[in-house]
Amino acid sequence: MQRIDEAAEGVFVIAPTPFNEDGEVDFDSIDRLVDGCIAAGVAGITILGIMGEAAKLLPDESEAITRHFLARVGGRVPVVVGASAPAMVPLARRAHAAMAAGAAGVMIACPQGTKTEAAVEAYMVETAKALGPDVPICFQDYPLTTEVNFTVDTYQRIVERCPTVVMFKHEDWPGLAKLAEIRRREREEGVRRLSILTANGGLFLASELHLGADGCMTGYAFFEALVQICERFTAGDAERGEDIFDAHLPLIRLEQQPGVGLAFRKEIYRRRGLITSATIRRPGPVLKPSDVDELDRLLARLARRLDQLDIPLPKGLTR
Amino acid sequence: MQRIDEAAEGVFVIAPTPFNEDGEVDFDSIDRLVDGCIAAGVAGITILGIMGEAAKLLPDESEAITRHFLARVGGRVPVVVGASAPAMVPLARRAHAAMAAGAAGVMIACPQGTKTEAAVEAYMVETAKALGPDVPICFQDYPLTTEVNFTVDTYQRIVERCPTVVMFKHEDWPGLAKLAEIRRREREEGVRRLSILTANGGLFLASELHLGADGCMTGYAFFEALVQICERFTAGDAERGEDIFDAHLPLIRLEQQPGVGLAFRKEIYRRRGLITSATIRRPGPVLKPSDVDELDRLLARLARRLDQLDIPLPKGLTR
Amino acid sequence: MQRIDEAAEGVFVIAPTPFNEDGEVDFDSIDRLVDGCIAAGVAGITILGIMGEAAKLLPDESEAITRHFLARVGGRVPVVVGASAPAMVPLARRAHAAMAAGAAGVMIACPQGTKTEAAVEAYMVETAKALGPDVPICFQDYPLTTEVNFTVDTYQRIVERCPTVVMFKHEDWPGLAKLAEIRRREREEGVRRLSILTANGGLFLASELHLGADGCMTGYAFFEALVQICERFTAGDAERGEDIFDAHLPLIRLEQQPGVGLAFRKEIYRRRGLITSATIRRPGPVLKPSDVDELDRLLARLARRLDQLDIPLPKGLTR
Amino acid sequence: MQRIDEAAEGVFVIAPTPFNEDGEVDFDSIDRLVDGCIAAGVAGITILGIMGEAAKLLPDESEAITRHFLARVGGRVPVVVGASAPAMVPLARRAHAAMAAGAAGVMIACPQGTKTEAAVEAYMVETAKALGPDVPICFQDYPLTTEVNFTVDTYQRIVERCPTVVMFKHEDWPGLAKLAEIRRREREEGVRRLSILTANGGLFLASELHLGADGCMTGYAFFEALVQICERFTAGDAERGEDIFDAHLPLIRLEQQPGVGLAFRKEIYRRRGLITSATIRRPGPVLKPSDVDELDRLLARLARRLDQLDIPLPKGLTR
Repeated sequence: MQRIDEAAEGVFVIAPTPFNEDGEVDFDSIDRLVDGCIAAGVAGITILGIMGEAAKLLPDESEAITRHFLARVGGRVPVVVGASAPAMVPLARRAHAAMAAGAAGVMIACPQGTKTEAAVEAYMVETAKALGPDVPICFQDYPLTTEVNFTVDTYQRIVERCPTVVMFKHEDWPGLAKLAEIRRREREEGVRRLSILTANGGLFLASELHLGADGCMTGYAFFEALVQICERFTAGDAERGEDIFDAHLPLIRLEQQPGVGLAFRKEIYRRRGLITSATIRRPGPVLKPSDVDELDRLLARLARRLDQLDIPLPKGLTR
Repeated sequence: MQRIDEAAEGVFVIAPTPFNEDGEVDFDSIDRLVDGCIAAGVAGITILGIMGEAAKLLPDESEAITRHFLARVGGRVPVVVGASAPAMVPLARRAHAAMAAGAAGVMIACPQGTKTEAAVEAYMVETAKALGPDVPICFQDYPLTTEVNFTVDTYQRIVERCPTVVMFKHEDWPGLAKLAEIRRREREEGVRRLSILTANGGLFLASELHLGADGCMTGYAFFEALVQICERFTAGDAERGEDIFDAHLPLIRLEQQPGVGLAFRKEIYRRRGLITSATIRRPGPVLKPSDVDELDRLLARLARRLDQLDIPLPKGLTR
Repeated sequence: MQRIDEAAEGVFVIAPTPFNEDGEVDFDSIDRLVDGCIAAGVAGITILGIMGEAAKLLPDESEAITRHFLARVGGRVPVVVGASAPAMVPLARRAHAAMAAGAAGVMIACPQGTKTEAAVEAYMVETAKALGPDVPICFQDYPLTTEVNFTVDTYQRIVERCPTVVMFKHEDWPGLAKLAEIRRREREEGVRRLSILTANGGLFLASELHLGADGCMTGYAFFEALVQICERFTAGDAERGEDIFDAHLPLIRLEQQPGVGLAFRKEIYRRRGLITSATIRRPGPVLKPSDVDELDRLLARLARRLDQLDIPLPKGLTR
Repeated sequence: MQRIDEAAEGVFVIAPTPFNEDGEVDFDSIDRLVDGCIAAGVAGITILGIMGEAAKLLPDESEAITRHFLARVGGRVPVVVGASAPAMVPLARRAHAAMAAGAAGVMIACPQGTKTEAAVEAYMVETAKALGPDVPICFQDYPLTTEVNFTVDTYQRIVERCPTVVMFKHEDWPGLAKLAEIRRREREEGVRRLSILTANGGLFLASELHLGADGCMTGYAFFEALVQICERFTAGDAERGEDIFDAHLPLIRLEQQPGVGLAFRKEIYRRRGLITSATIRRPGPVLKPSDVDELDRLLARLARRLDQLDIPLPKGLTR
């Protein structure tokens, strides 16, 4: 059985949930999306995260989507399923259902309203216990959305008390110093080393790889670029990796915006033929004509810049 | 078919969701709760609100709870079902399922993150349209939790554009001037008059009745007191109504606290025999020994004060 | 030299800052206010807090107000001066200026944006060091306004590391369990015992006195009632104290509202002749006619209730 | 007398406030900073903004800093002074003092806690009236910090009602569609055209110039790059402008981070010799060794990229 563990590395792409124009789940697009990601060399796929519009799904839809993704992936890469919930009962139900369906682990963030660091620690300890020893946990730190903040001390206590927490989705912002401090404690103080995958849409990916991140777990419509960047770093050619990163940074920044960022991302996915419609479930952001113009322009610039760098254009990007 | 409308008045009690010690839904307690509320003379029952721990339920639990409440009520009073959701699809699904099961209307609040008044108006217009002409809406205004704020101008536009919005759950805080201004516009400017039921745990109930509220939609473990207060006001004896209100105010204030307030409320329900266990689904507040001491003391004082006022003690309150 | 210390008890009244109709500081009213409070038996006066509109003052006004209050008080009771600031330099300047002018201590809260408990602890340790050994600190815990949350563990570390923190302004909400836990640790674990004065407008004063608070540091337009309540508790007649408390609770609750609560408070002060105008500096809340009606009604009820209890009516309250 | 007006364009650089190692204001560095900015071709200088640590200054320091900046600038470019305040009295005092000292206008944002759009409009109308006809206002829209959100409808009403609002500091995020809609209404609906300068550290500057921004009012340690970018756009060579922008984007992104971003910015200023110390007033962010390493690396990359583009390296950037 495939499970995520502390050795995970590379790109776990946060998959969007495709809908058709009427807002119904588009299962055919899931197939194309999965195949496209795997062909690009992602190390894993994460579904039902915030960018997967998980909160906007009906429960039976969430289950069907999970099953469909897992079936299409067919064990080619591990699949992590978002299972955050306002209470232990639904959290555990979702997590166990995901694992039963073949997931490789679950992603959990502390719920909004967790006000103190003691409460963060208690929550994660209770969560790990509720899920049991067979559910690997990717612990997500995303204060921009959850408003839950904690220090490396709290992180360390959670790592010490929760053996099933094997992966850290690093998404604090600013967060470079926190990442560096975690790596330092692992090296110098024997703290158990987790797989650290970074996020925030990849906005600091190159810096994070320099600081010791094992990869990223985030969404970006040109996910093959994330793969290339990580590969170049792993291969010892960080400079080339960072050239690729810089070329994509204007678009990464566009997608990283709260709200409308997802609309840009889905529109690019649509243009690439990976999903049929860029629809976001209502209420949600919609691209204005000025946004589309801006996207066109930035895509054309990206193509030119990749040409300068002798990087093959990703599918769906034309010069 | 029973439906809430603009003429609704009296007490719509926000029902807690009873759990047993293990956190499983306790359907037997629902029966006692329903019978107790109806015997006390409530005008309606509202289920699956925030204080009903709606967000902590599994979807099949929510459905089973709705069916069970509706079956037990058996049409004796209208039942309003909370249906707020982060997106139109789950909102409409829940609302239509509730109506199909026999609900008299649904309660909807704008989701957190609705940042401008234009967005509030657009959201409610779209919601009313998505639910169709046969789903009466109780529109909830609860900025302390949702962080969504709007003026009476926006309220008025929603009332004008959404004929199915028939009830306003007034829960802004401070909110007395807003309530007064809505009533003034109805009287003087011909704005459609809604049923306005107030909330915030009843913390300002007497003032709100003076200002023209039609009753309240809120939770309080001695719900018969809410009924008595509203009855006294309707009967023209506001002074006596307010005496009863003041007697209960110390406990109302205790229950109105975020978080631990629900733990106090469920503990009183438990002592009254209306529910078997005071359990709140984890993570959630738990009464400390000092809290229990304080509750004991306040209950004893309430009993003495009701005696002074020649008010019969509610079931479960002893001197 | 008068200094607050760990033995402080009773009522430290949070004084409003009086303005005339044009929004200019009204120094004559300060005189009446000071004399009225001292005549009522307050144990101390706190100026330039949030309810004193400190943030709305010009720096020279703050200094003049501080000097004027201190001169009028003339050492009859200790005066605590609010000195919270976004940085150490203005904090220290204000605190030292206040002490030089004759203050008995300063009140400090962690600034908004202090995100972790480690940061709270570091902030208070640095503050205490910056102020030096001669500035007694009243440490304010007011998350409803500051959005800064911390546990009793952090409280304890601050108490252990900062000998000049001698007073705790307890204003967490809900906060009864936190207060009880602090008192328990003092009794059972030898944590240094501070003077704990509670706040939130006195909304839970009786319960807090039962739980071991030494008094309160808050505003309420009938401050003599706060004094009477504390005196009754100290005299061993808590029941009578709580009767007085309950009589005032409807108005306490009215004043405790954010924003408009201060407008109610200043209006009552005005009616009592303690200040000449109820003006709040713009932008700020203004009472609507419906608010004034409600206030009239609640004051009349208070007078009747105090009559029933054989409590002399405070100055300015008529039947 | 120099005044900002609707025709302003180019780069208004947000100046940091230099401190020496002890946290005292460093007036000598102000001189170097001013001369460096003007030599680089900035169109204006804005002082005492959030990034100028305005809230951390003593009032006499603020005044001295204003006078010193204005004296050194000596009328070479207009100087805008931040004057946001929690109340009209200090706002007006600061604004009038700044104008009396020679400022060309003031920058005003609605205070945190302005909850509805009606309140935003009322606040700006009152502000404009309080400042009178001779104080040009730069209206700042910065919800990431203020949590105040408004639509273009509200913007339009403010523009219509407040003739002295001549400049809009566009800092909503995401904000491209808002900017485009304002420009559309100016073109198509006759809304008065303001000078729109964008901010957020320049993170979207090139896109904003494409959408019709007149320049930017923001901080970035290589301010000459902002000038070059705006000049290229004005000269009709947007492509070259955007090449320069993209080269700087990794550092712009680093500085745009809340908190630590300012520490990076001041450190670069220090290395460039424009300020003597990178000190931020406590409590404030401090660069960790890992941050410094990352900064070194990004600066080296910037130098290489500028070389590729045949752009002269800015002073203080070495290859």
